Amino acid sequence: MNFKYVFYLMSVLAVIESGFMVLCALLAFFYGEGDVMSFLSSGLITLLVGGLLFLMTKNHKKEIHRREAFLVVSLVWVFFSIFGALPYYIGSYVPSYTNAFFETISGFTTTGASVITDIEALPHGILFWRSLTHLLGGMGILVLSLAILPVFGFGGMAMFNAEAAGVTVDKLHPRIKETAKRLWGIYMLLIALEIVFLLLGGMGLFDAICHSFGTLASGGFSTRNDSIMSYSPYIQYVIIVFMFLAGVNFTLHYFAIKGNYKKIVQNQEFKFYLILILIVTAIITFCLILNNHAPFEHSFREALFQVVSIITSTGFVSANYSEWPSYLWMLIFGLMFTGACVGSTSGGVKILRHLLLFKNSFLEFKRLIHPAAVIPVRYSHEVIGKDVIFKIQAFVVLYFVIFFIGTIILAFLGLDFITAMGAVATTMGGIGPGLGKVGPVDNFLMLPDMAKWVLSFLMLLGRLELFTLLIIFVPAFWKNQ
Amino acid sequence: MNFKYVFYLMSVLAVIESGFMVLCALLAFFYGEGDVMSFLSSGLITLLVGGLLFLMTKNHKKEIHRREAFLVVSLVWVFFSIFGALPYYIGSYVPSYTNAFFETISGFTTTGASVITDIEALPHGILFWRSLTHLLGGMGILVLSLAILPVFGFGGMAMFNAEAAGVTVDKLHPRIKETAKRLWGIYMLLIALEIVFLLLGGMGLFDAICHSFGTLASGGFSTRNDSIMSYSPYIQYVIIVFMFLAGVNFTLHYFAIKGNYKKIVQNQEFKFYLILILIVTAIITFCLILNNHAPFEHSFREALFQVVSIITSTGFVSANYSEWPSYLWMLIFGLMFTGACVGSTSGGVKILRHLLLFKNSFLEFKRLIHPAAVIPVRYSHEVIGKDVIFKIQAFVVLYFVIFFIGTIILAFLGLDFITAMGAVATTMGGIGPGLGKVGPVDNFLMLPDMAKWVLSFLMLLGRLELFTLLIIFVPAFWKNQ
Repeated sequence: MNFKYVFYLMSVLAVIESGFMVLCALLAFFYGEGDVMSFLSSGLITLLVGGLLFLMTKNHKKEIHRREAFLVVSLVWVFFSIFGALPYYIGSYVPSYTNAFFETISGFTTTGASVITDIEALPHGILFWRSLTHLLGGMGILVLSLAILPVFGFGGMAMFNAEAAGVTVDKLHPRIKETAKRLWGIYMLLIALEIVFLLLGGMGLFDAICHSFGTLASGGFSTRNDSIMSYSPYIQYVIIVFMFLAGVNFTLHYFAIKGNYKKIVQNQEFKFYLILILIVTAIITFCLILNNHAPFEHSFREALFQVVSIITSTGFVSANYSEWPSYLWMLIFGLMFTGACVGSTSGGVKILRHLLLFKNSFLEFKRLIHPAAVIPVRYSHEVIGKDVIFKIQAFVVLYFVIFFIGTIILAFLGLDFITAMGAVATTMGGIGPGLGKVGPVDNFLMLPDMAKWVLSFLMLLGRLELFTLLIIFVPAFWKNQ
Repeated sequence: MNFKYVFYLMSVLAVIESGFMVLCALLAFFYGEGDVMSFLSSGLITLLVGGLLFLMTKNHKKEIHRREAFLVVSLVWVFFSIFGALPYYIGSYVPSYTNAFFETISGFTTTGASVITDIEALPHGILFWRSLTHLLGGMGILVLSLAILPVFGFGGMAMFNAEAAGVTVDKLHPRIKETAKRLWGIYMLLIALEIVFLLLGGMGLFDAICHSFGTLASGGFSTRNDSIMSYSPYIQYVIIVFMFLAGVNFTLHYFAIKGNYKKIVQNQEFKFYLILILIVTAIITFCLILNNHAPFEHSFREALFQVVSIITSTGFVSANYSEWPSYLWMLIFGLMFTGACVGSTSGGVKILRHLLLFKNSFLEFKRLIHPAAVIPVRYSHEVIGKDVIFKIQAFVVLYFVIFFIGTIILAFLGLDFITAMGAVATTMGGIGPGLGKVGPVDNFLMLPDMAKWVLSFLMLLGRLELFTLLIIFVPAFWKNQ
């Protein structure tokens, strides 16, 4: 294992992170608020540690194999979160380090689960840092899933993530740097567009920027205590549209910009994503009208917002779905396991996996009737190898097993059944709001510290699609080959 | 599709069923109770319909293919339950046909979920009929999984059920009839043994017979309102032992009788089954002692009984686990998804499937580290084909999907979240008691009728391991070939 190179990369990233902290210090200075020193000292600590690590690892071999890559991918998020928690902690904005770490990793994994009760009391610098973790996390996951992993020759791994189904079929661009630039270009373009539309709706510039970061990263941190609830219908619709776009495979955005609409229309995952949102929204709208006798537009907007927010794993809230009839919040709970499209910033299982497994289940019956026939799964006119389906099945089974074990652990830590289930589902899926005591208008502050560490781990586990992180816990990973 | 032969078989089975009803009529006559007429008229109706069907299908072709076999296997349970509900219904012991059907299919699928509130008020004939449905269901499932399906050349299907892992490796006997005889011999022997041990503990003969039927079929219908709660510790231990034995692959019982103990010691599933029971029992015992300050033996017995009862999908109750701390009944809830060994009378996913998937998940990491190597799953020194693992994965994924859809449907029918989850898990797993309002001391009476039909379907679905039943709903199944 080339540890030197691994930690060299970490040192570079730490230096970059300290730069962002300085940026926030400048912002804090501009607003004349008390968090300047918090950012400067955090930046300094991060720079010092990063610089020291850099000096220690300068004479590394520039060689990286699969194992190093796995380790880097997992460590990046941990390193960023360890240092990223400092601004909250040093300035006592989040006085416990456990809580500060939770808030930070929740940001970087674009989950959006929060331990802060009075968000509006925070200074602008801290709020911006909070939204910045989303922005960076979103950039990280896009590049990881669409540029780094496939190009790195993680054939099995890439297919495992099912991201490759978007990449091998409709290649963006062969080289990582170019691909990363294009992805980030699209990402920034969409953020800029959302900012403009939010400004047009009368939202202030600062809030518009923060909310746009939270939307496109499918994160969900808001600058308001009640999230998006008290904003105008126009703003809610704008956020719905951009949450939806954040959940689309970014390869499709690239095609859209190139004018290649045929690719979008032909994309089965996109179609399924759209149809699923419409059906669930229709059901919830119908039930809300029946149940609350609320006007159509209001019920429709409430349903659509929550459905899009959960399915894309954003986690903005415009209505407290915990107060809906139980069969409706159970539907919402179900959406926590679907996720949006692969190659987007959204988390969870993702629709392509469900789609392929659904097709396979159906074909499994055909195989039983015609045991001698070879009946492969097809997706977008291509035959999907049995190996890919096999790996997706293993992923989904493992997802459910971890969900169950996580729920049991939280229960042993004192959470009730529904809260435990909701907390695990929402962190593994990278969403934010859960059920029960961690519902849409509550937060994670009152959980025991140990539960926060478990959930932090689950956020990372979900974000890295289980295997990328779990593999470093397998003894065989560390054996010299 | 050779419908004539399919319905010919149904007619024969109906005639046999009517014979059992007459048997119960004799018993009712012996006790001098009022259910004689109920059994006689039920028997007559069943005999008439069966006879009529027999005459209509007498000139059938004696030809049966895969599709006919699938249909027969699914229809048998439905036919038996449709007629089997008559004794409850005609004598107004269960005045609603929906309820009577639910009770009957719960018996035949050896689930043991009940809609009867005052069991002790029922006459002996009805109680015996109730336990007889367990006995027959248990015989059915043993022969289906260990004799009929494998011999019928359902290669894929047999492996699918993972039953074959017990059969191809350690073949019982090649011919269905011989195998069936041996299985039933072992089954009856164990029942007889349990009756003797229960009699020694002071239980009356009638109760001993009924409880033994319920134990070995892993059914769970008791003749008492409070199930096994008020029986002596000795009797509870006897029932624990026989529930445990009912959850063992019956091939192993055969080996035990033949003195081939090596086969038993080498059986990984059996080992895992034993270890799982011991670990969960230890955890629960420990927590119960801490929590209730109850004496060790009492806590141990309470834990062991409930663990063995749920894991084997029997569903007898000696303590109300709903009153345990929530993390403990969540463990019990987890056991509803494990099941016991394949080739036993227990329901649910079964341990062999979990074991193979667990091994495969672990190897999946090795495959990621060594992408070029072929790393197969091994079980009992044999290589398990990727196709088998593939089918098991498909099974487990489908199991969870159906669990989730079932829960949502029940929620829409008005059940709360925990009750809905418990009801679906317990019926799919063939257990009996669930969670919430269908917990161990409650029953299914107050559920809406539609929910009872859904749960009846789920009982059958779980009993027939999903695919065997679902396949007849696939259009391709009905196409002429």
